Amino acid sequence: MNSQPVASRLDNLFRPRSVAIFGASDDATRISGRPLRYLLEGGFAGPIYPINPKRDTVQGVKSYASLADVPEVPDVALVAVPAALTEQALRDCVAKGVSAAVIFSAGYAESGDEGRAIQQKLVDIAKAGGLRLLGPNCLGLFNPQIGFYGTFTQSLDKEMPSAGPLGIVSQSGAYGSHIAYLARQKGLGINYWITTGNESDIDVAECLEWMAVQDDIKVIMAYVEGVRDGQRFRRALELARQNRKPIVMMKVGRSEIGAKAASSHTASLAGSDAIYDALFRQYGVHRADTTSEQINVAYACTRGIFPEHNKLGVVTLSGGAGVLISDAAERFGLDVAPMPDAAQEVLRELLPFATVTNPVDTTAQALNEMSLLARNIEVMLDQGGYDALLGFFSTVPNTRTLSGPLRGAIEKGCERFPDRLIALEMVAAPEVVRAYEDAGFLVFEDASDAVASLGALARFGKAFREGGVTRPVPQAVPISVAALSEHAAKQLLSKAGVPFLDERLAGSADDAGTAADAIGYPVVMKIVSPQIEHKTEIGGVILGVADRAAVEAAYVTLIERAAHHCPDATIEGVLVAPMAGKGIEVIIGVSRDPVFGPAVMFGLGGVHVEVLKDVTFRLAPFDREEAHRMIDQIRGRALLSGVRGAPPADVDALADLLVNISNFAAAHRDDIETIDLNPVIARAKGEGVIALDALVVPRSVAE
Amino acid sequence: MNSQPVASRLDNLFRPRSVAIFGASDDATRISGRPLRYLLEGGFAGPIYPINPKRDTVQGVKSYASLADVPEVPDVALVAVPAALTEQALRDCVAKGVSAAVIFSAGYAESGDEGRAIQQKLVDIAKAGGLRLLGPNCLGLFNPQIGFYGTFTQSLDKEMPSAGPLGIVSQSGAYGSHIAYLARQKGLGINYWITTGNESDIDVAECLEWMAVQDDIKVIMAYVEGVRDGQRFRRALELARQNRKPIVMMKVGRSEIGAKAASSHTASLAGSDAIYDALFRQYGVHRADTTSEQINVAYACTRGIFPEHNKLGVVTLSGGAGVLISDAAERFGLDVAPMPDAAQEVLRELLPFATVTNPVDTTAQALNEMSLLARNIEVMLDQGGYDALLGFFSTVPNTRTLSGPLRGAIEKGCERFPDRLIALEMVAAPEVVRAYEDAGFLVFEDASDAVASLGALARFGKAFREGGVTRPVPQAVPISVAALSEHAAKQLLSKAGVPFLDERLAGSADDAGTAADAIGYPVVMKIVSPQIEHKTEIGGVILGVADRAAVEAAYVTLIERAAHHCPDATIEGVLVAPMAGKGIEVIIGVSRDPVFGPAVMFGLGGVHVEVLKDVTFRLAPFDREEAHRMIDQIRGRALLSGVRGAPPADVDALADLLVNISNFAAAHRDDIETIDLNPVIARAKGEGVIALDALVVPRSVAE
Repeated sequence: MNSQPVASRLDNLFRPRSVAIFGASDDATRISGRPLRYLLEGGFAGPIYPINPKRDTVQGVKSYASLADVPEVPDVALVAVPAALTEQALRDCVAKGVSAAVIFSAGYAESGDEGRAIQQKLVDIAKAGGLRLLGPNCLGLFNPQIGFYGTFTQSLDKEMPSAGPLGIVSQSGAYGSHIAYLARQKGLGINYWITTGNESDIDVAECLEWMAVQDDIKVIMAYVEGVRDGQRFRRALELARQNRKPIVMMKVGRSEIGAKAASSHTASLAGSDAIYDALFRQYGVHRADTTSEQINVAYACTRGIFPEHNKLGVVTLSGGAGVLISDAAERFGLDVAPMPDAAQEVLRELLPFATVTNPVDTTAQALNEMSLLARNIEVMLDQGGYDALLGFFSTVPNTRTLSGPLRGAIEKGCERFPDRLIALEMVAAPEVVRAYEDAGFLVFEDASDAVASLGALARFGKAFREGGVTRPVPQAVPISVAALSEHAAKQLLSKAGVPFLDERLAGSADDAGTAADAIGYPVVMKIVSPQIEHKTEIGGVILGVADRAAVEAAYVTLIERAAHHCPDATIEGVLVAPMAGKGIEVIIGVSRDPVFGPAVMFGLGGVHVEVLKDVTFRLAPFDREEAHRMIDQIRGRALLSGVRGAPPADVDALADLLVNISNFAAAHRDDIETIDLNPVIARAKGEGVIALDALVVPRSVAE
Repeated sequence: MNSQPVASRLDNLFRPRSVAIFGASDDATRISGRPLRYLLEGGFAGPIYPINPKRDTVQGVKSYASLADVPEVPDVALVAVPAALTEQALRDCVAKGVSAAVIFSAGYAESGDEGRAIQQKLVDIAKAGGLRLLGPNCLGLFNPQIGFYGTFTQSLDKEMPSAGPLGIVSQSGAYGSHIAYLARQKGLGINYWITTGNESDIDVAECLEWMAVQDDIKVIMAYVEGVRDGQRFRRALELARQNRKPIVMMKVGRSEIGAKAASSHTASLAGSDAIYDALFRQYGVHRADTTSEQINVAYACTRGIFPEHNKLGVVTLSGGAGVLISDAAERFGLDVAPMPDAAQEVLRELLPFATVTNPVDTTAQALNEMSLLARNIEVMLDQGGYDALLGFFSTVPNTRTLSGPLRGAIEKGCERFPDRLIALEMVAAPEVVRAYEDAGFLVFEDASDAVASLGALARFGKAFREGGVTRPVPQAVPISVAALSEHAAKQLLSKAGVPFLDERLAGSADDAGTAADAIGYPVVMKIVSPQIEHKTEIGGVILGVADRAAVEAAYVTLIERAAHHCPDATIEGVLVAPMAGKGIEVIIGVSRDPVFGPAVMFGLGGVHVEVLKDVTFRLAPFDREEAHRMIDQIRGRALLSGVRGAPPADVDALADLLVNISNFAAAHRDDIETIDLNPVIARAKGEGVIALDALVVPRSVAE
């Protein structure tokens, strides 16, 4: 059934033409009575078929003894019967040819093994019969555009939602209801709302995918606790980005990982919250820290303007607010760039008392002559090159005499610039706020919230502009399923574009001498064995070997040490390599997240990874731009730019290496568990990077 | 006049028994008419004396031709006349013996040199006559308890403020009005509100000091752009802390300093925002990032409960909210500690479906039997040991049938624990919220805001418990006013308790040899001259000198190099010192902030300070506990605990060194500009710390 294009696969569920309700109750206050009540109150456009063998009508609607008696095939069945009767209901749905069933009741997989088995049975029945399942243990879904309420959520008791630009997907029914209510309070309508509960079939990823292609959604709000199908989830995020649908995400569970992330080893971070962070960063998803942030950012998205750049113009009636906003702008990545000199001159003539750089502080004077304020705003938008303008007006819009004229002045100042984001800070009565909103402005009570939201819009703009990250997964090369020695790992990774030193494997002391002669002195020598992972611990590495005689002696020493410490190890020989040269140590790793597949880690060497946890992740594969963003994200970035007289490092080569390793990791997503390149030496610009050591753990070995 | 105790010095200003108004206008909408209108509307308890030579009455109140005609000495005069007449008004106030005058008009120091001169004249008149001045360029002050409105702020136009537990001090009139309005909207009354404008006399510090001793203030909100008298400001913060008056501060200007802080040199951070951060940390002031945070935290403070510890109990109707709250708790330093096993057992019997660790997820089931919810809360408070409890109830309190019973259940559960903080998340109509608040609960619409505020209360509790930081300033030792050589600097700092190596100053090659014999080989040798600051640059340091012959030769080499590179330098000799030994490099610095005096900086050596800016500051002097907090605050703290097999460093000795240097810096606040101890080697626990180099720049040299 999943062969249908995503654009239509869930259409019957979200936009049913007819609805059956198993166990519909005449008591409209009960869980089993509420969906019918909401459908009736909401004025559902199509026929409703209550299935209730005990009654002729339910809440005044003709009811049927069984689904078989219903005169047509309903698109959706709401299943509000006890668990014991659910199985039969689904069989009836399959027999009738219903598209999708919504199961409200709890007591399935979330309650333990027994429940899981019962749930699996339902899934088997549905799958075999081509029936899609929402739930169980969910609050259902609604679509106010057609009055479809397939839900029993109590939060509709007081007031029905209105249609509007939001799509909401939530794994938690309670949180979904919560943000739906808050959105309504903020004046935001919802076109589609769905809660996925146990996700026995339909999951958050598929819902996101469906919403990503709906023209009547401007922004998607999501609540996620965990994702099962990482590939589909990534596909959904990518689709949303391609379609310029901002996703404002509440992903909970950060703190659990606070502890896990304390371990610096790449592998231990698999499946962690850090991977979600990487994912959201890569796909341009806004991750909200708080519910009010989630609502505010979604609200700001409904304008549908995602600016090209991050320049913010600020106009205030008081200097203090301007400083506060400048502080917030720095925090949220917006540039309060000064007005050009000529434009400042114009403003200075308009308002001699004003501060005219940016923030522009008109002082309360501007209120005495609103046309000056209008002109001021116009000049800022015209000559300042600002993508967004934020005005701080405190309680002025709430004063009867000034509210209208102020709004008029701002409208006048903005009228030639419908493409710009205009946000206003004000503390005013709801009806005043609505009037400003109807005039096209975003309104915030807190200036920092306004700045944070504008910052999010600028980041969406950047993500939409930068385009897709989903890249063709490169061809895999055949790799060993057994443990790999350092030498074998390096040979494998060399082909993938990882630069190593000119190393030679020597099988005898004489071989080693010949190799060293060719490489040039001094050389480094290392024992090679798949069983010896930590060579330095057994004295398996000798540095700075200065001439042929010393090389031959070192060969013998290394073989002896290996035989002594690891008598059972297979010795492949001794590596002879040149000294690494100068540069900055970095670490690159790959670990396999069980949900999202291989993630690439990058950090500076030494204490930076181990103590300061100054690392960053991206899911493989990614491109050069993403690799550069990765490099730029670490706190110690300045070290790569050259400090204390050191030359800048070759970050371009470093980015290439990250891309190559990400391609390799993606190609081998199923057969490699971890890769460690530690250290990698980033040499001076133009001189490239060199990986000194490589460890590859195939999945077969790790398991 | 400042000899009065702070408790009473501003009493007449904040609680006047009578008020005169220069330039009082009959037109109640004008700036000069509004104060009288507000006084009349507010029902000011004492006599009001309008001074207006052109009229017999103003807004129906008998007016006087001059202040001299007024039959008593008014406590306060409001000066609402043009700048040209202000001087005479102040002379009249002095002649009459008025305590304080409030000057509203602008055009003084804030407008340039001319204005500054005029302002100075006003100050001179007032000072000579014992008259205190508020302003100019301010919005005045108010005290709703006695209906005193010495302000023309437009924000009172719609509604007069009510009295209550807040004190508000703001350097900005507009911001002061803004937060007063927001506070009122949040249901918070204000007992004292004052804006200080140009601070020609009364400044934010004196107002804070006054508020810190008022019994009828529970929390002080402040807005500060900059502080002129650092000592008084510190005294005010300390007084507030001693009196357990929380200060919730908006200090703007963080971003300006973003740029300045990028420079790692300690001296360049003087006067910077980092110093304010240090100050607020030391004195337990809550620094808010956003206005809504400032309001929320102040609101939470009005309960007057500042918990001993940071354990948070969480009860929700949905699992998702619990995870979200746990994430926030980690962010804001609260411990969502699990319930003891026995208590979990009790809860499990009460609510079989619930998750009973903490967060306790009762599921919506609890709403069916409210007594279970009550008992649940009671068990958590009784056996969980939580300082604060946060309940997440979303829209339930807004449902007519459940709101009352829910409130009753929570009240019942909490009734035996009046000392605990109970915060509730809910989305409900204002009247519902008020009913919950009246029952003693803190109510927040956003769960993260609730957690952030509870976190702030816990930090206040800790700060109040830890007690004062103001310590006696130690006795200064006489120091040179000329530039100090490394040797002289070390001698000076040695007396102050800074440990250095056993170094000896040698005046000849033979001297050097004798010194090295006594110290033991190998030794380090350094040229000593007050004119040579950067010794390594001229080859003035030789490491690892192995025997007597080498020492004598090195002596000659160093003297020759100094003579060659710095022919005019005074050479005091050559230092002979033992090798430093192993340990972790740290940097300690002192810089003199022009406002707050000496600040001590601490960071790890090398890239940690220069690249990662991983440094922390405290104002001198401070005690051992503060020094430990300082050490614990840096991101690289784990390095001092021993990583990669290194032993833990002697952080106790490090803390002692920080305390000693802070005492020394405080004693010499007026004669030392900067001190650099770089590097300091923190040896293994029990082995102490050693400063290897010292640079002291006296102020006389720096200027």
